[in-house]
Amino acid sequence: MAIEGGAVSNKQVIFKDYVSGFPKESDMYLTTTSTKLKVPEGSKAVLVKNLYLSCDPYMRGRMSNLASEDPQFSPFQPGSPIYGFVVAKVVDSGHPEFKKGDLVWGIIGWEEYSLITEPERLFRIPYTDVPLSYYTGLLGMPGITAYFGLTDICSPKEGERVYVSAASGAVGQLVGQFAKLMGCYVVGSAGSKEKVELLKNKFGFDEAFNYKDEHDWNAALKRYFPEGIDIYYENVGGKMLDAVLINMRAHGRIAACGMISQYNLQQPEGVYNLTSIIYKRVRIQGFVAFDYFSQYSKFLDFVVPYIREGKITYVEDIAEGIESAPAALVGIFSGRNVGKQVVAIAHE
Amino acid sequence: MAIEGGAVSNKQVIFKDYVSGFPKESDMYLTTTSTKLKVPEGSKAVLVKNLYLSCDPYMRGRMSNLASEDPQFSPFQPGSPIYGFVVAKVVDSGHPEFKKGDLVWGIIGWEEYSLITEPERLFRIPYTDVPLSYYTGLLGMPGITAYFGLTDICSPKEGERVYVSAASGAVGQLVGQFAKLMGCYVVGSAGSKEKVELLKNKFGFDEAFNYKDEHDWNAALKRYFPEGIDIYYENVGGKMLDAVLINMRAHGRIAACGMISQYNLQQPEGVYNLTSIIYKRVRIQGFVAFDYFSQYSKFLDFVVPYIREGKITYVEDIAEGIESAPAALVGIFSGRNVGKQVVAIAHE
Repeated sequence: MAIEGGAVSNKQVIFKDYVSGFPKESDMYLTTTSTKLKVPEGSKAVLVKNLYLSCDPYMRGRMSNLASEDPQFSPFQPGSPIYGFVVAKVVDSGHPEFKKGDLVWGIIGWEEYSLITEPERLFRIPYTDVPLSYYTGLLGMPGITAYFGLTDICSPKEGERVYVSAASGAVGQLVGQFAKLMGCYVVGSAGSKEKVELLKNKFGFDEAFNYKDEHDWNAALKRYFPEGIDIYYENVGGKMLDAVLINMRAHGRIAACGMISQYNLQQPEGVYNLTSIIYKRVRIQGFVAFDYFSQYSKFLDFVVPYIREGKITYVEDIAEGIESAPAALVGIFSGRNVGKQVVAIAHE
Repeated sequence: MAIEGGAVSNKQVIFKDYVSGFPKESDMYLTTTSTKLKVPEGSKAVLVKNLYLSCDPYMRGRMSNLASEDPQFSPFQPGSPIYGFVVAKVVDSGHPEFKKGDLVWGIIGWEEYSLITEPERLFRIPYTDVPLSYYTGLLGMPGITAYFGLTDICSPKEGERVYVSAASGAVGQLVGQFAKLMGCYVVGSAGSKEKVELLKNKFGFDEAFNYKDEHDWNAALKRYFPEGIDIYYENVGGKMLDAVLINMRAHGRIAACGMISQYNLQQPEGVYNLTSIIYKRVRIQGFVAFDYFSQYSKFLDFVVPYIREGKITYVEDIAEGIESAPAALVGIFSGRNVGKQVVAIAHE
């Protein structure tokens, strides 16, 4: 909406204050400011219109006031906009490498328009024959996370047995499909019948189970992995990790991508079966996608041909309108989303 | 003692029955059988006189009746001799590659004389200008464990900060000395004032502390590692691992060699701080020395020159006589030993 002085109104999702326990919608609020659709005279900034906001579990970390030695994980500022991965379109540019109409993705504020002073940090969107929202998922940070976590951390070999938790989520659904393309046997777990159906019928997992229906996860894993697990792609942590540890095979690998079951607990769950990693020579490796961003083109070279051949599918859960952003973000911590949670705030 | 028919008496340490909780001396008993000092006619066996028995924490695992997929970790048989690493001298040989007087080390029964039907599994003792007992420690399995756990699993770089728990033990005292030779800053913990003095004054650790005097291990580690830990050589597990996890630096490495604090508990302690490995990209890698036995000569090439230059020292706690073996083995689980626990049953 145009307002006086050539500015437009700009809705923002503001972070209210630090959170303990599960985040609530009321931990955020919407406000409306105004933004000029021009970059400041002489600056090398770009002004973008934001299209799709990405809701990701790692964002929970930024809602706690915990000092981090790593600026990539610094907390949100109360009173300032939430920020995360966003797909956006350049409206105005003072930077020689960006021009009006360019499509980009990167870390951007949750608002309708953003002035970006360091546009070098943005990624250009290389293909537009896929939904643009995919750059928050399949072709964005979650895709990079799935691919390098699986390949670089776990080095899957044909015939190996792979278990993925939170398997219908933004990352899990890709880990399973990538592992199948690499010739592995793949089992996933998720939290509803609908999600389990997706894993088996849409993503091509060999087996899948609803962890909420299983009272003994150790027994469930033994049923699907009678000879043990070679690779565990860890998205959950806590009791699930404990059940996995006693089912790992010798020389097994665990890619510690996330532990969403632990993020909202006042006191994390204990993990009791770590001694088993010694004689089984198991490796547990934490990693973060940021470290692989410089290899984005390598990932695209792998994944884009498969997308064009129809061999990879991606399920998104798209909430419409910036007003729906707080509920969408909160929902991922209770598994309300089916597939990758996105918020569409404009479609072009 | 010679007995009729050309046989000699042969004392053995017999495993009584499977153990839960801390092992006790009464979980073993001595018995006397007789053994001919000749290998059976036409066999390729060797008959050895055992000199030094090695008491090692991993042996606790064999005292529990737990199925293991790995035959290297199968349980002891009730009613049969304990077995472990032993230094021995060949008394008679039917094998073309062994002759009377040869010195060897390997997995052998806890008895005065042993008939070994697969002598190919034994290692020859290459240097005799060091105490022969060193082949149960510095130049045996613990040395291999220390060296490859540090170098292969942790890849130490000059200036990195290394923490070793159970640091005065058979493995820990070597890890610290090897890390110092590689230019690292090294801190160790142990369970008595005497052991802490050894670490600082004999093994050349930069710092050392008595974990029994520290009520807050997190605070103790912060004191010695204000910038965090790059490498943790894990011998202890449980609460110590938890304190280490929150003090690890980004890209830190944990060599999971043993978790002696957990072996005798009915219910292991929980580890609560695993989520921190994700954003810190920490790697935790279980390993066993057996996997490196084929690289024994590589280890000797590294360590023997340092021994000859007097740059590596080794402290042993030698119990005299096979009758002392049960108490010596039991003692390592309460830290009664100072340095590597050995049982001398004959000196030549």
